[in-house]
Amino acid sequence: MLPPSLSDTIVALSTPPGAGAIALVRLSGPQAISITDGVFIGKRLRDQAGHTLHYGTIREGERIIDEVVVSLYRSPHSYTREDVVEISAHGSDYIVQELLSLFVRRGARLAEAGEFTKRAFLHGAFDLAQAEAVADLIASDSQLSHQVAMRQMRGGFSQELKELRSRLIHFAALLELELDFGEEDVEFADRTGLVALLQEVQGLVRRLLRSFALGNVIKHGVTSVIAGRPNAGKSTLLNALLNEERAIVSDIAGTTRDLIEDEVSIDGIRFRFVDTAGLRDTTDVVESIGVERTLKRVQQAALVLYLFDITNTTPQQLEAEIEVLHAPAGVPVLAVGNKLDVASDAELSSFQHRPSTVLIAASRGDGLDELRETLLALVRGEGLDRTGSSTIVTNVRHARSLEQALQHLDAVVLGLEAGTGTELLAADLRHALAALGQITGEISNDDLLTSIFTQFCIGK
Amino acid sequence: MLPPSLSDTIVALSTPPGAGAIALVRLSGPQAISITDGVFIGKRLRDQAGHTLHYGTIREGERIIDEVVVSLYRSPHSYTREDVVEISAHGSDYIVQELLSLFVRRGARLAEAGEFTKRAFLHGAFDLAQAEAVADLIASDSQLSHQVAMRQMRGGFSQELKELRSRLIHFAALLELELDFGEEDVEFADRTGLVALLQEVQGLVRRLLRSFALGNVIKHGVTSVIAGRPNAGKSTLLNALLNEERAIVSDIAGTTRDLIEDEVSIDGIRFRFVDTAGLRDTTDVVESIGVERTLKRVQQAALVLYLFDITNTTPQQLEAEIEVLHAPAGVPVLAVGNKLDVASDAELSSFQHRPSTVLIAASRGDGLDELRETLLALVRGEGLDRTGSSTIVTNVRHARSLEQALQHLDAVVLGLEAGTGTELLAADLRHALAALGQITGEISNDDLLTSIFTQFCIGK
Repeated sequence: MLPPSLSDTIVALSTPPGAGAIALVRLSGPQAISITDGVFIGKRLRDQAGHTLHYGTIREGERIIDEVVVSLYRSPHSYTREDVVEISAHGSDYIVQELLSLFVRRGARLAEAGEFTKRAFLHGAFDLAQAEAVADLIASDSQLSHQVAMRQMRGGFSQELKELRSRLIHFAALLELELDFGEEDVEFADRTGLVALLQEVQGLVRRLLRSFALGNVIKHGVTSVIAGRPNAGKSTLLNALLNEERAIVSDIAGTTRDLIEDEVSIDGIRFRFVDTAGLRDTTDVVESIGVERTLKRVQQAALVLYLFDITNTTPQQLEAEIEVLHAPAGVPVLAVGNKLDVASDAELSSFQHRPSTVLIAASRGDGLDELRETLLALVRGEGLDRTGSSTIVTNVRHARSLEQALQHLDAVVLGLEAGTGTELLAADLRHALAALGQITGEISNDDLLTSIFTQFCIGK
Repeated sequence: MLPPSLSDTIVALSTPPGAGAIALVRLSGPQAISITDGVFIGKRLRDQAGHTLHYGTIREGERIIDEVVVSLYRSPHSYTREDVVEISAHGSDYIVQELLSLFVRRGARLAEAGEFTKRAFLHGAFDLAQAEAVADLIASDSQLSHQVAMRQMRGGFSQELKELRSRLIHFAALLELELDFGEEDVEFADRTGLVALLQEVQGLVRRLLRSFALGNVIKHGVTSVIAGRPNAGKSTLLNALLNEERAIVSDIAGTTRDLIEDEVSIDGIRFRFVDTAGLRDTTDVVESIGVERTLKRVQQAALVLYLFDITNTTPQQLEAEIEVLHAPAGVPVLAVGNKLDVASDAELSSFQHRPSTVLIAASRGDGLDELRETLLALVRGEGLDRTGSSTIVTNVRHARSLEQALQHLDAVVLGLEAGTGTELLAADLRHALAALGQITGEISNDDLLTSIFTQFCIGK
């Protein structure tokens, strides 16, 4: 007996919206084939084998909605493990809307975000960490993020967790056995071996947790706010970093009012640079809104580039201006001195030895390589292994579960040192195992699944 | 022997770019299957039947680029009539780029815009007018444009042209026969019957040409520039017409500097409304650039909405301000009086009877329905049949060819009246036939094909 959520047939556009050569509309569920048969003129799909393609038209009454090719997958040999039909139609938003509403009138339900992948998970096609990697893979936009997501989707991370768990489970089982013989005060589990094992597992979990700092950056990029006085050259720097004319540049101070932002990948790590309105006291209402937004945006930044004009800024002014930004604790503020090319030796020397400072000439591109290197160094932090040979945790949910597991493992270790009774040890070990099991979904609940799959795009 | 352009294998992304559940990468050509076989791990595609689906991975050496499903089509049973492989991959731009560059390294060539459809045309899958309708179908964004494009793609227009041509060809053949018997002064072709036929064909061609005015609007929409003094309420009107907060609205005159534009469909016809900077003398440099752009944009408009504030504009001022716009001849300027809700009776009465004027209250939505009706009436012009039961010409190339055909038909009719010799009549009739034949591509050349297919999207 299927749960109600699996007994209906879902439909969604599975390719990005917008005009293109082809749009794919996907149905999955018990009625996927019969619903399509009701509107598809060409062949009786119910008589066809799985993994086949069929040309025909989709009609509503006499009206032809499109000439299409239908891909037919039969349960369990499909992505969701259910019957699946994919309609390859002309890539017009209008046609897609017509198809979706036709299928809904015929009894399908519009799929929720990630619902196809959720069904694949519920039917056991893969575990939860792998399902989450599908979304990461789609969002991947660099070799690093692609590599990390692919490894996770194909079960690399799951395998590592499985090994950790199976070693702990062995000891947990021995502890549970001791509890069964509680009255007899036996020790099946070798305490010394357990400590050694726990320390090893703690080490592995800690390594995974440490990898999350880099994983987070690989996945989400680094929001880097470019702040500074008007005419410091912020828009010129943004354009130089992006290598395109993204922001309007003029000699007129206050040209930029809206926040202009765009992304660029530096050595596989994505930086989202935000160009901001120049910071000055202004009576222009629209411009002052811009200044307010700049200061607000600094609060959300992962990194702040404070751009100043070497030729009209004293070191004292620079410190005072950086102070005014009120960058949150832990957010590095990199001072970037611009107009290196026209600065005097005296002006240059006042900044050359300031820590966290790079001198550039944004308009000529001087110093940009050094700036990029400095940005990368700030982000990579502890010099984590970025070759991808080891697992990198990119998912905040996984990091939280690992933290929980680590807490319980710490408690077990402390308990062993303090000679705590078997019952408490066994309970903490069970909690640690549960935390690890949540990552792969061996332990899960509806709320967790909902919160995970709503982060997917529609149609996946 | 294939022409060189058909002997290689082409590859392109066939779904819209951007993140989505699925991206389709399509290959077509003699090596489509062997190139894919070289990187696809799962099955030997060359051993598989056409119209089948195959799961596997695409790898470059040891590195997995993606887990994919391959759709296999064998010549001539494919869109292009060639061997075709479609790779259904995860919808990540990064993965798509990796796949494309992998296939190019393996010997495929990046497809030009429309090249798949061009190959289908060259292999005789459909005629030129039908091929052009494929692009129109993809661009269709309303029931009307969809209906017109679908009819054309399925050969409705081609059929109509074929009938016109076949009737003319019969008479042309008789005239050519007379030329063969030139010395003998015989008349095989009944001149009276020819005149009657020509008049009927002229009538049909004229009807098709007249339909182009509406066809053009159905296909391209109506660019409607909203101009007016600062604070007349242009951004408020734009937002009301679009039914969303598209433009920033404030009490501060000069809030809008950039041209903000967006589309909305009114009764199946697409209007592209362009909100502009307010027209006034200004010393603000950025704002004055905006004013300049507004006046420039008026020159490219299909329709101008001149928005004025009823409460602070006299009829004389209104006429003077509309004069300053220098709207091109033939472009209707609709005066739209705003703030109807706060205007006095005296103020209202000075505009109530002005032609081409609608009074509204943009902030409350009053008068917007009347405004929409007036816009539709301006666009539909002569009240053409918009039910779509008859063919509507939407393509400027087709309209030009029809014009040429009509000129030559006119020449034949004049020639017949003036008793012109058979030779000249036959020549004009041949030209008319050639012009009609260009529409369906029975007569075509490389330049024509290039100019047509470069208007397609990549991947189609």
